[in-house]
Amino acid sequence: MIFKTEVRVRFSETDMAGWVYYGNYFVYFEVGRATMYRELGVTYNDLKKEGLMLPIVEAHCEYRHPAKYDDVLEVHTRITEVREKSLRTEYEVYKEGVLLARGYCIQVCVDAERKARALPELLRKKIEATEK
Amino acid sequence: MIFKTEVRVRFSETDMAGWVYYGNYFVYFEVGRATMYRELGVTYNDLKKEGLMLPIVEAHCEYRHPAKYDDVLEVHTRITEVREKSLRTEYEVYKEGVLLARGYCIQVCVDAERKARALPELLRKKIEATEK
Amino acid sequence: MIFKTEVRVRFSETDMAGWVYYGNYFVYFEVGRATMYRELGVTYNDLKKEGLMLPIVEAHCEYRHPAKYDDVLEVHTRITEVREKSLRTEYEVYKEGVLLARGYCIQVCVDAERKARALPELLRKKIEATEK
Amino acid sequence: MIFKTEVRVRFSETDMAGWVYYGNYFVYFEVGRATMYRELGVTYNDLKKEGLMLPIVEAHCEYRHPAKYDDVLEVHTRITEVREKSLRTEYEVYKEGVLLARGYCIQVCVDAERKARALPELLRKKIEATEK
Repeated sequence: MIFKTEVRVRFSETDMAGWVYYGNYFVYFEVGRATMYRELGVTYNDLKKEGLMLPIVEAHCEYRHPAKYDDVLEVHTRITEVREKSLRTEYEVYKEGVLLARGYCIQVCVDAERKARALPELLRKKIEATEK
Repeated sequence: MIFKTEVRVRFSETDMAGWVYYGNYFVYFEVGRATMYRELGVTYNDLKKEGLMLPIVEAHCEYRHPAKYDDVLEVHTRITEVREKSLRTEYEVYKEGVLLARGYCIQVCVDAERKARALPELLRKKIEATEK
Repeated sequence: MIFKTEVRVRFSETDMAGWVYYGNYFVYFEVGRATMYRELGVTYNDLKKEGLMLPIVEAHCEYRHPAKYDDVLEVHTRITEVREKSLRTEYEVYKEGVLLARGYCIQVCVDAERKARALPELLRKKIEATEK
Repeated sequence: MIFKTEVRVRFSETDMAGWVYYGNYFVYFEVGRATMYRELGVTYNDLKKEGLMLPIVEAHCEYRHPAKYDDVLEVHTRITEVREKSLRTEYEVYKEGVLLARGYCIQVCVDAERKARALPELLRKKIEATEK
């Protein structure tokens, strides 16, 4: 299942080279990830109530073509691996059907002391439901 | 008393027009403000322990000359008004002695419910000490 | 004429206090401004072809209520003053009808040497057309 | 040869989880990279005069421990591979001797049409000089 969302490039996201600053693709990934969790029906606050968070432990991006100011980008987000305590999501950023960038993030479930914990049952079930 | 600190312009802080993005001067103001609180000896955590925060309720900037990538800027910060529950700080951003931008911020002291409260005694005393 | 656009608060736009970082409202203003220019039919590139830019010379924001992660905000943008060489725009940021923040920006038309110039006829006409 | 530089975590760089936002480590990497080019004596403008740029084509970060507001971080930057048209740099971010994050970036030399080109002789010589 692919979760899709659009972002329009802001002036603040460009740099003096004239295109989107490389670090901002991780913001676009996050917008994709937020869309995914929203559509799964699992919120940041749901997790927090259980004392859990999902910090990023690894992030990666490959850049093929630059995005520029006012471009309308489509971010595709997929869950590609679910382990006991962690989750891998992959991202593709398109402009008019052309792949501009792709990457992935790995999130680990941790408690308030940042100790690794099993992914909450709620999240696991929602993910399984998308796979059917 | 003027609190001085330096920032070097990062690539990420520029935009496609070739200079520093206008919103980032408020980040430079914040670096100046953080330096001021550090030198006063009052930290964010000191306030938080008392259940207090100092959110910005008003921010203003006037831009005279643009800053560009790799410029070394000097940020000058001064407290210009202390009221019962609020505080006004003024900022000047210089490059090699030339004023590039100036502005101010007003912070109000609030509790966890965001109700306005008197500035903590600790902060008030530290500020008074700088005025002697 | 009021130009309206929506922004959804991103995780990257929050800070450790738990709400949107004060400097990011100027990014929201810019999203409002970009929407306005797009709907007027005047682009950054149109101006650049004439060798003109519209840098911000003054920016101001008053904060009433904080925005938080995932809030859907409505940004209202209006042109409130047109002078020979400059332009004043005002912004209001709402969440579910409640005003969270308001402010303004002043842009001056400059050429490649950053010398003030008359606003381009194209822009002036588009603005006048909205006033009828 | 390791190029070292310090960054102090800004309030704007934190997020509502209480630590530095994951995307901002790529800004820290860039500060490290800028320091490296400055110390090598090769500037963005030197390259631009030759019609060349060094966009990032791949970026990667692994996060071990979170950084928080006001932390003083040390960024270590090394060139680990020089090819005909590209360059790989590695980054380590330390706090008081503890490794918080590490990663790498690959830059490709391109001309104004974004066609891959040989790294400029100037840069190649400066890098070779550090290896002796």
